[in-house]
Amino acid sequence: MMKTMNWGIVGGGEGSQIGFAHRAGSALDRKFKFAAGALDVDPARGREFAISLGVDRARAYGDWWEMLQGERSRDDRVELVTVATPNVTHFEISKAFLENGFHVLCEKPMTMTVEEARELVAVAKRANRVCGVNYGYSGYPLVRQMKAMVADGVLGKIRVVVAEFAGGFMADAADADNPRVRWRFDPKQAGVSAVSVDCGIHAMHMACFVTGQKVTKVSSDFAHGITSRELEDDSSTAFRMDGGAIGRLWASGLAIGRTHGLTLQVFGEVGGLSWKQEQPNQLLYTPLNEPTRIIERGSAGLSPASLRAGHVTVGHAEGMVEAFANIYRDLGDVIEAAKVGAQPNPLALDYPTAEDGLHSIELIHAMARSAKNGSQWTDLI
Amino acid sequence: MMKTMNWGIVGGGEGSQIGFAHRAGSALDRKFKFAAGALDVDPARGREFAISLGVDRARAYGDWWEMLQGERSRDDRVELVTVATPNVTHFEISKAFLENGFHVLCEKPMTMTVEEARELVAVAKRANRVCGVNYGYSGYPLVRQMKAMVADGVLGKIRVVVAEFAGGFMADAADADNPRVRWRFDPKQAGVSAVSVDCGIHAMHMACFVTGQKVTKVSSDFAHGITSRELEDDSSTAFRMDGGAIGRLWASGLAIGRTHGLTLQVFGEVGGLSWKQEQPNQLLYTPLNEPTRIIERGSAGLSPASLRAGHVTVGHAEGMVEAFANIYRDLGDVIEAAKVGAQPNPLALDYPTAEDGLHSIELIHAMARSAKNGSQWTDLI
Amino acid sequence: MMKTMNWGIVGGGEGSQIGFAHRAGSALDRKFKFAAGALDVDPARGREFAISLGVDRARAYGDWWEMLQGERSRDDRVELVTVATPNVTHFEISKAFLENGFHVLCEKPMTMTVEEARELVAVAKRANRVCGVNYGYSGYPLVRQMKAMVADGVLGKIRVVVAEFAGGFMADAADADNPRVRWRFDPKQAGVSAVSVDCGIHAMHMACFVTGQKVTKVSSDFAHGITSRELEDDSSTAFRMDGGAIGRLWASGLAIGRTHGLTLQVFGEVGGLSWKQEQPNQLLYTPLNEPTRIIERGSAGLSPASLRAGHVTVGHAEGMVEAFANIYRDLGDVIEAAKVGAQPNPLALDYPTAEDGLHSIELIHAMARSAKNGSQWTDLI
Amino acid sequence: MMKTMNWGIVGGGEGSQIGFAHRAGSALDRKFKFAAGALDVDPARGREFAISLGVDRARAYGDWWEMLQGERSRDDRVELVTVATPNVTHFEISKAFLENGFHVLCEKPMTMTVEEARELVAVAKRANRVCGVNYGYSGYPLVRQMKAMVADGVLGKIRVVVAEFAGGFMADAADADNPRVRWRFDPKQAGVSAVSVDCGIHAMHMACFVTGQKVTKVSSDFAHGITSRELEDDSSTAFRMDGGAIGRLWASGLAIGRTHGLTLQVFGEVGGLSWKQEQPNQLLYTPLNEPTRIIERGSAGLSPASLRAGHVTVGHAEGMVEAFANIYRDLGDVIEAAKVGAQPNPLALDYPTAEDGLHSIELIHAMARSAKNGSQWTDLI
Repeated sequence: MMKTMNWGIVGGGEGSQIGFAHRAGSALDRKFKFAAGALDVDPARGREFAISLGVDRARAYGDWWEMLQGERSRDDRVELVTVATPNVTHFEISKAFLENGFHVLCEKPMTMTVEEARELVAVAKRANRVCGVNYGYSGYPLVRQMKAMVADGVLGKIRVVVAEFAGGFMADAADADNPRVRWRFDPKQAGVSAVSVDCGIHAMHMACFVTGQKVTKVSSDFAHGITSRELEDDSSTAFRMDGGAIGRLWASGLAIGRTHGLTLQVFGEVGGLSWKQEQPNQLLYTPLNEPTRIIERGSAGLSPASLRAGHVTVGHAEGMVEAFANIYRDLGDVIEAAKVGAQPNPLALDYPTAEDGLHSIELIHAMARSAKNGSQWTDLI
Repeated sequence: MMKTMNWGIVGGGEGSQIGFAHRAGSALDRKFKFAAGALDVDPARGREFAISLGVDRARAYGDWWEMLQGERSRDDRVELVTVATPNVTHFEISKAFLENGFHVLCEKPMTMTVEEARELVAVAKRANRVCGVNYGYSGYPLVRQMKAMVADGVLGKIRVVVAEFAGGFMADAADADNPRVRWRFDPKQAGVSAVSVDCGIHAMHMACFVTGQKVTKVSSDFAHGITSRELEDDSSTAFRMDGGAIGRLWASGLAIGRTHGLTLQVFGEVGGLSWKQEQPNQLLYTPLNEPTRIIERGSAGLSPASLRAGHVTVGHAEGMVEAFANIYRDLGDVIEAAKVGAQPNPLALDYPTAEDGLHSIELIHAMARSAKNGSQWTDLI
Repeated sequence: MMKTMNWGIVGGGEGSQIGFAHRAGSALDRKFKFAAGALDVDPARGREFAISLGVDRARAYGDWWEMLQGERSRDDRVELVTVATPNVTHFEISKAFLENGFHVLCEKPMTMTVEEARELVAVAKRANRVCGVNYGYSGYPLVRQMKAMVADGVLGKIRVVVAEFAGGFMADAADADNPRVRWRFDPKQAGVSAVSVDCGIHAMHMACFVTGQKVTKVSSDFAHGITSRELEDDSSTAFRMDGGAIGRLWASGLAIGRTHGLTLQVFGEVGGLSWKQEQPNQLLYTPLNEPTRIIERGSAGLSPASLRAGHVTVGHAEGMVEAFANIYRDLGDVIEAAKVGAQPNPLALDYPTAEDGLHSIELIHAMARSAKNGSQWTDLI
Repeated sequence: MMKTMNWGIVGGGEGSQIGFAHRAGSALDRKFKFAAGALDVDPARGREFAISLGVDRARAYGDWWEMLQGERSRDDRVELVTVATPNVTHFEISKAFLENGFHVLCEKPMTMTVEEARELVAVAKRANRVCGVNYGYSGYPLVRQMKAMVADGVLGKIRVVVAEFAGGFMADAADADNPRVRWRFDPKQAGVSAVSVDCGIHAMHMACFVTGQKVTKVSSDFAHGITSRELEDDSSTAFRMDGGAIGRLWASGLAIGRTHGLTLQVFGEVGGLSWKQEQPNQLLYTPLNEPTRIIERGSAGLSPASLRAGHVTVGHAEGMVEAFANIYRDLGDVIEAAKVGAQPNPLALDYPTAEDGLHSIELIHAMARSAKNGSQWTDLI
C-alpha cells in the first residue's frame, strides 16, 4: 500500500491559477499531502492563505528561506517541493531545496540562463534528488498515447512535427500595460523572449516528448504585433531534430479567437497524429491511405502509458487538474522507488526532467540568437 | 475562513469509477475531508480499501449499518454521507442516515418507486437535513451558464428542449450477458426501465435544471435493439413542461460511435443553446438571426453561477471531477450556512435536490406507463 | 458517347433557389440541355426569365399547359420535365406530362393526398415513363456511401435509425406572417402538416433510402412553438420499419442555431454511421468497439455508388448542386437505357422513385393521424 | 440581359479534375458557353473528348496552335480562353492568345520565371485584354467575406496572417515514383520548387487577397521528408507584408490526415478570422474579448461581395465548382463591361489578376533563394 508523502509549495498564492492546479493535481491520486508552503511574496498573506487551506500554522511559512529552514530539520518534512515563483527566482530556490535533500518540481522555464540550467542538472545529480520541470501538458493521457504510438513505430520514422501555442491572450493593446501582462515583455524579468519562452517552450517540449527527439538547430523569427513591446509577441521557428525530423513552431499571443491554442501534429512515413489541448480527450490518428480515426481517451486498446494516466471512464472529460496529477503520480512513484532502492514503474519515467528543462533553455536561447541574426540557422549547443 | 467538514461514503469500492469521482470531487475544493466509509459489499475488502485511501482504521466500516452506528455517536462524525450503492438500496440507506441527522448526497436514481421518493423528501424535511441527488452533470460550469441565460430571459420564452443521452455502451451483443451490463435489464434489480432510468434521467434532469420547468406529461416509446433484453435499450419520449416548453428525449445504449452522448439543446423565442458533455468547455449560443457564438468556459462576461463553478482559467479543460466538485461545494455551502442559521449563497442552491430526485422518479414511472400503453400521453402525477 | 437530352422545367422562377439548383444540377454532367420552361405563375415574367437563361423564345412558355401543348408535338421535345411548382399543383402537372409521354422529376411532396400519390404511381407505370421525386439529399455521395455500407452488411442488422431535420428557419415570430413562411402553416395550401412534410419528410426518405427499409407504423407528436399557427412547427415521431429497425425523427423549424439541421444516424449490430448535411463531405463510421473513422468523400476504398456520385477529387468540397446533379445523372442513365431497351447501370437506380414519393405521403398522413389521436401508434396502410 | 460568351480551354483532358472544374465553373452562371477546346496532348484523344462534351467537330482542336488559328478568324470566336496545360507551357500559350486578342484565364503558376511573368503582364496591358490567374480558392464566398471584413476595418490593422496548405498528398513513399507525383519534384518540369509552388502559392495568394497587402520579404526553409526528392515536400516561410503584417506559411505534402489542408488565419488589432477550405461554408470570426462567431455562408448581414458569390441559400453546401464559377462570373462581368466601354461591377474586380500571378512568381523565387541561402531574409524584388 502506498503511503502518502508530505508535499510543499513555494509560490502559487491566492488568486494564482497555477497554485490551485498544483494543489489539486498533487492531491488527486492521494500520493501527496499538502503539508507546508510559502505561498506569497507578502509573508503574512502567504501564511494566512496556507492556513486557510489546512496547512498547520507552524508550516505556513513567510518565505522560501524560512520554509527551507523549517522543513529540513523535521522528521516529517516535505519530500517534494514545488517551485511556482516568478521565473527569475526558479534557479536559486530549486537549487537550495535540492541541495538540502528535497525533491523538486520546478515551474517552467526552469532557469533564466543556460548556465543556471546546466548547474541545476548537476546539482540534482549530486544531491541524488529528483528534479522535474512542470511541462504539465505532457501529463495529458492522449499526449502520452502519442508518445507511445511514435515509440512503437506506429507512424514509422517521423518526418515532420508541427507545434503551435498561439492564442489571443496578449492581443489586447489596451491591456498591454497591465502589470500582469507587461512583465512578460520586460527583458529584465522575462529574459531573452516573451511569447516563445512563455508558450512556445511548452509546444516544443511536447514536440520533443512525443517524438523522443531533441532539437539540434533552429531558424527563428521573433516579431512584434504590438510594437511598443521590447520582446516578441509572435514568433515562428523552423527546426531540425536529432532523429531527422523537420520541425515547425508557431507561438503567438496575438491570435484572437484561439482561446489557448496549444496543438501538436506529428507526421511519419506511414501515419499522422493531431492533438489540440482545447479538446484534450480526443486524438486524431490517420494511417497512410486510410480514414482518420478519432481516438477517445480511455478507450480500449490504448497504450498502457495512456490508460495509466486516465482517471475516469471513456466518454467523460478530463482536464488540466488530471494532467498535473499525472506528473505528480510519476514523481511520487519515482521518489517512492528511490527511497527503497527499487526501480520505478517505467511508465512513471514520462515526467519532464531537469534535462528536459535544460534542453528548453538551450532551445529558447538559440531561438533568440537566431532571431537576432536575421533568422540564421543556429545550433543549440 | 472555511472549516473542512468530515465526509463519508457508502459504496464506491475499488474499481468503481463513481467512487473515485466522489472522492476526488469532494476533496477538490477542500470543503470535505474523507473521514469514513463502507466501501464494498465485502466488508473486509471495503475496510482495506478505505484504509488504503487514508481513512482511519476505526472508521473503515464493513457495511453501512456499522458506519451509521459508528459515526452517529462521534463528536467528529461525518456531516455529509454519499450513498453510491446499488440502486435498490438507495432508499433504505439514505433514509437511515437522514433520520440520524446526517446530510446525504444520494446517487441517482434516488429510489425505485415514487412512494419511496416521496417518503425520502418528507424524511429529509422532518430531519431538517440536506438531501441532494447526484445529477452530476448539472455541476458543469456551462450547464449552469445555460440555466442562468434562460433564467435571465436571454432566450425569451422557451419553446423546445431536446435532451439526449445516447451512446454505444450497451450495444455489444457479445457483452449482453456480462453481469456488469445484464443487471440493468433485469426488472428485479433495475425496476421499470433500463436505459431510460440509467441515462435518460440525467438528460431529463438537465432539461428541467436548465429551463427551470418541470415535466407535466409524456408519450414514450421503449424499444429493444437486443431483443433478449427484458427492459428497453433505446427509448424516445415526447413531453410537455409546466412553463409551456415542448420536449423531446432520446436515450439509447445502442448508438455505436457516440462515446457518451449526453447533449442538451434549448430553443426559445429569440435564441438557442447547444451543449455536449463530451466537449463540456464550449457552449453554442445563437441569438435569433445572428451567427452562433462559441462560449468558452471561464471567459469574461459569463454568469456569476458559471464563473463560480470554474476551477482553472479559460482555455484549459475541466471535466467530470470538477463538475462533481461543484455539487460538493454547493452542499458544503448550504450545510455550513445551516449550521450557523444563515442564508446560503444563493448560487449554492443549484445543487440537485431530493425534490428533483422525486420528479425524476415520477417521470420515469410515467414514461414506463406510457410505453406500456402504446405511447399514450401520460400525466406525471 | 452520350447524347444530350432536352430538358424542361415548370416553376422555379427568378429568385427561386430550387429553380437554380435544378438548372445547375441538370446541366452539370451535360446529360441534359435546358430547352423549355414555364417558369413563373406570371406568364410574361416566366417567359422573359426563360429567355434570359438562353431558352428559345418559342419554348419559353407562359404556363405548364402551354408548355405541354408546345412540347408534345415537337420532334426535339424535352424528354424530362421537372415539376417545381407549389405543392398543391404537383399531382395535376406531373400526371399530365406523364400521360403525354414525358418523363417527370417532381419536387417533394409528390402529392397532397395518398390517393393522388397512388394514382401517380399507376399513371407512370401505365405510361411506362420514369417518375422521380426530388429527395435531392439522396444524391450526396456520402449518403449513397451509407446506403451501400448498410446493404453490404457493414453495420450488421440495423437496430436504430435517428433522422433529424431541425433548423431555425421558422423561428422568427416577427416573420411568421410573411407570405413566404405563412402558407406552410395554412392547411389549405400545406395540407395536413407543416414542418413534418416540409422537412421531416426529407429526413424520413433518407432513413428509408439508407436502410433499405420502409416505415410500418408511427407514433407522432405535432406541436406548436408559435401558437398562432394552425399546423405544427415542431414534431417528433417514433417509428418501426419493415426490416426491424427502431426509428426516431425530430423535425423542427424552431431550432435557432441549427442552420439547416438535416442529419442521419444509423446504428446496427456491429457499427454506426453519422452524417450531417451541413458538412456533407465527411461521414463518421464507427465499427463496434473501435475508434470512429472520418470518411472523406472521394477517398480510396469507398463504394462504387459513392465514387460514381463524386465530381471533384478528395479534399475539395461538393454541395447541393452536385447532389442534384447525381439525381439527374441517374435519371439520364435510366431514360437512355429505356430508349434503347437496355438495362440501366444498376447504380443509376438510386434515384428516388414515385413509389418512394407515395411512401412519404402515406407516412406523413399516418403521422398526422397519430398526432391527432394522442400519439397513438398508427399503421401506414 | 446577359449574353452568353463563347469560351474555350486548352488542356484539361479526360480524367483531369481541373478540366471538369473549369467546364462546370464556366457554365454554372450561364455567362460562358463551351465552344472550343484543345484538350489533350494527344490530338485525336483531345478532339474526341471535346466532341463528346458537345463541342462542334470543327472547334475540337488537336492542339493550342491549331485552336488559335481556328478561332482567331471566326466571328463567333471564343472570347475567353482558359489555359490548363502543364506549367512550363503556360507562358507561351497565354501570351499567344493574349496577343491575338483573346482574354485569358491561366492556371497557376502563371509562368516559370519572374521575367516571363513580367512579360505576360506587359503583354496583357498592351493587348488591352484581361489576363486572370486561377487562384480558384479566392472564389469561395467566405474568402471574399474575409477580404471585405479586413477592407472594412472590422479587424483593425492586421498584425499576423497564418497561411497553410498542408496535406498528405505527397506522403506515400511507395507512390513517389508515380509519374503523376514525380514530375513535381523534377526541377526541369517544376522549376525551383515543388510543394511551395504547387500548394503554398495558393495559400500565399489567399493571404494577399484577404489582407490586401503584398509580401515584401521572406525567410524560407525548404525541407525533404522523402529524401530522394530533388525539390522540397515540406516548407515553412516567415514573411512581412507591405501593410505591416507579419506572416507565417506552412506548405507540406507529408501531412497525413490533413486531406487537403488549405487554411487561413488572420489576426488584427481587434479581431481574428479563421477559415478552412475543407469546411468552406463556415467562417470563424472573433472580436477582441468576445466569443467566436460561426459565420455561415449566405447568412444575413454578410458583405455584398460574399452574398454576390453565393449560389444556394444558407445552410446548403457549396464547393469547388461554385468557387470557380465566381471567378468566371467576375471575368464575364469585366469582359462584358470592357466590350461596351463601361466600368465593371466593382465587386467583379475580386478575380485574381496577372499582377497577382506575377507577385506569386516573385514570391516563390524569393522563397527558393532564401531557402538556398540558409533561410536568410530575402526581398521579393
